[in-house]
Amino acid sequence: MTVEVKNDHIEEIRLLLEGGDEHAVSSFLSGLHASDIGRTLAGLAEEDAVKVFKLLSPELASEAVLEVDERLRKALISSISSEELIEVVDEMETDDAADVISELPIEDARQVLEGIGKEDSLEVQKLLVYPEDTAGGKMQAELVSVREDSTVQQTIEEVRRKSKDIENISNVFVVDGSGRLAGTVALDKLILAGPDVPIKEIAEREPVKVRTDVDQEEVAKIFQKYDLLTLPVVDHDGRLVGRITVDDVVDVIEEEIFEDFYKMAGLNVEERVLDPPSRSIWLRFPWLFVNLGTAFLAASVVKVFQGTIEKLVVLAVLMPIVAGMGGNAATQAITVVVRGLALGELSLKNARRVLAKESLVGLANGLMTGGIAAGIAYIVGIKPAVGLLLFIAMTANLLIAGLSGALIPLVLKWMKVDPAISSSIFVTTCTDIGGFFTFLGLATVFMKAGIL
Amino acid sequence: MTVEVKNDHIEEIRLLLEGGDEHAVSSFLSGLHASDIGRTLAGLAEEDAVKVFKLLSPELASEAVLEVDERLRKALISSISSEELIEVVDEMETDDAADVISELPIEDARQVLEGIGKEDSLEVQKLLVYPEDTAGGKMQAELVSVREDSTVQQTIEEVRRKSKDIENISNVFVVDGSGRLAGTVALDKLILAGPDVPIKEIAEREPVKVRTDVDQEEVAKIFQKYDLLTLPVVDHDGRLVGRITVDDVVDVIEEEIFEDFYKMAGLNVEERVLDPPSRSIWLRFPWLFVNLGTAFLAASVVKVFQGTIEKLVVLAVLMPIVAGMGGNAATQAITVVVRGLALGELSLKNARRVLAKESLVGLANGLMTGGIAAGIAYIVGIKPAVGLLLFIAMTANLLIAGLSGALIPLVLKWMKVDPAISSSIFVTTCTDIGGFFTFLGLATVFMKAGIL
Repeated sequence: MTVEVKNDHIEEIRLLLEGGDEHAVSSFLSGLHASDIGRTLAGLAEEDAVKVFKLLSPELASEAVLEVDERLRKALISSISSEELIEVVDEMETDDAADVISELPIEDARQVLEGIGKEDSLEVQKLLVYPEDTAGGKMQAELVSVREDSTVQQTIEEVRRKSKDIENISNVFVVDGSGRLAGTVALDKLILAGPDVPIKEIAEREPVKVRTDVDQEEVAKIFQKYDLLTLPVVDHDGRLVGRITVDDVVDVIEEEIFEDFYKMAGLNVEERVLDPPSRSIWLRFPWLFVNLGTAFLAASVVKVFQGTIEKLVVLAVLMPIVAGMGGNAATQAITVVVRGLALGELSLKNARRVLAKESLVGLANGLMTGGIAAGIAYIVGIKPAVGLLLFIAMTANLLIAGLSGALIPLVLKWMKVDPAISSSIFVTTCTDIGGFFTFLGLATVFMKAGIL
Repeated sequence: MTVEVKNDHIEEIRLLLEGGDEHAVSSFLSGLHASDIGRTLAGLAEEDAVKVFKLLSPELASEAVLEVDERLRKALISSISSEELIEVVDEMETDDAADVISELPIEDARQVLEGIGKEDSLEVQKLLVYPEDTAGGKMQAELVSVREDSTVQQTIEEVRRKSKDIENISNVFVVDGSGRLAGTVALDKLILAGPDVPIKEIAEREPVKVRTDVDQEEVAKIFQKYDLLTLPVVDHDGRLVGRITVDDVVDVIEEEIFEDFYKMAGLNVEERVLDPPSRSIWLRFPWLFVNLGTAFLAASVVKVFQGTIEKLVVLAVLMPIVAGMGGNAATQAITVVVRGLALGELSLKNARRVLAKESLVGLANGLMTGGIAAGIAYIVGIKPAVGLLLFIAMTANLLIAGLSGALIPLVLKWMKVDPAISSSIFVTTCTDIGGFFTFLGLATVFMKAGIL
């Protein structure tokens, strides 16, 4: 996605801050959408972000603080007094409040929970027990529910009563005497029914629902599968405890996809482009360190054939081509396979078909690019026997690339390890070693046979 | 996202098909959700998929056919008669019908448009003029709108009238005498107002809206920014022509993120893991071909220093480490930068900050991994001078990796080229050439100076 961002106001804010006119900054901010303010905060130096944050109304602050990453959020929150923080948290929906409070030091968390009022505090505390990446962690306590013996009229009154405090009421939940979810009613159905109709009659009796401990990835898949706007969340006894709305799920979907590709590139999913350098250095170092190990492993293969290279140094010139092309083909294979696994288009059941396919694709592209490479080598005056060597080694290495690019994520999946993580490192190690070994090994054989 | 897909039924269906009992297949299918049927169709061999598709009710067929990729959809559609196809398309919402019809050969499209009834046909034809990846292409004509002089009671009656044919009515649109969008009303607001209240009074008067020609990526960003469920679409004169619902947007978001990473890996975004090999071969070949060119370019740098390698063949052993580590560090930098650009966290305004940051990260990790590499080299008995060379070259190359990993996507963005596409190829070319040049070039200098 590369739409030009037209709505960051970093330069304007910076100029106003330099001018020192806090009033001007305040009035400029009050005209912006919270998500733009969030983006602006993320783009400013931390001290400026703090200054701007302090000028926001509690309402805008409560929204903007949710739009920035955890690190900046901590800095912003610690810059305001606990009274101000209580005001800000008070403006939030329970799920967001729980997220923010869970990031606070224990003592601050206690103060805020005391400050936001007993009823809200109880709701938030209930949410705090669920891990953040589960249905329980994503749900909010705000919802409209009625007993199953209610009428349409009574239900409409309940919607009316709750609508001051709740946004996005797109349906009403029906519960039995012990609070167990018995059905859902979309608002349009409610409008259409006569006032005395029992709510049970117009309710969808077997609504899609999830338990609190379901992983957020699965929640996202359920939303996509059933095109839902809201999903009720129940506890182990089937009692309704919250609802998840589609806008929270959109963020989950985005996060999960980025996570896969971040892992493939050896990145920590928490890293952001505007993080301070020291953080990025330490987040990226471990993966580079592991890669250094595999690079030495590949180099040790070259070392074995040092004598061969000594006799024919053009091999050293061409060997990076073989290894590099294998790496590129492997990246293609692995990206397609990891995506297929992520979307559920591929499972272990059709693993064999995909292995065969990727091997064939690797072989075919190996034959073609190997042939072209041999042709170029011939044109630039390299001996035909070396060109032949290049052709065979590239074909073999692209076959290795396709096979390992499909096999390794599938094996990781079968071992119940995330197929995205570390797939790349294993696969490029295969193509590096494969490339050097086939190319230099064959060269040695050719030499012994007197062809080279 | 790696949730186990529990809902594909490929094996069961295959067994039933082998048994030849069409009735059993039909009744098994009728118990499944359309998205599961879609996934099952995609996992079967094409001839089996066709058999299964023919057994579906028009309603299930109309949903399942939207869940498979374009290639399979064409195969399925061409397997049924035009009467059957009309029945299937008749079950679809106008936006989906337009998508399917736009993929048909002209003659078939005309037949279907004639078959689905005059009113629907007109709506679909209006949608057909918009490119698929714009707001116009994503919108559906099904919506509830009332004139601005209506009352709440009249509006509720309009909802009632339309609700048989329209799913997911979450709000009502208000238009003026010439059809221009004048406001929106969420259903819960409608429930709460008295029957005689003029609809104008409870309408949101400046609703978020988009014009038909807005790109789908921007539409997705608007949904995320304002947490919308529905977005009205207007023509150049501000007249209401359709609405986009959040479930269509979720797919766009997913597609756009995958697209970025696909481009980075040199893949065509249309490719799917279960595509036939011939298709994957041809989709992947062009990128591999371009890479072959850059690989030869890098090799030509090695060629320049052939004499140096001849004198000290251990250089050929170590040079892939320098180039490979640069490539890994570059992939990290580029992934972070492309993601930042996609999410709008990074714009050209803070480009300098990111360039400085990535250079510093590259330098620091270069110093660390270079130091470790030199240490390992020393331990395995390589001359200290060669270790020093390795240290300097790795530091320089990781600096190059960070700088080019940030600079190249930013320059592409500045040139209004998609920063994801071809970033990787430029950056790895930089690190390959940079790695070989610094390592072998310095070695040559060291030799002349008598250090090596």
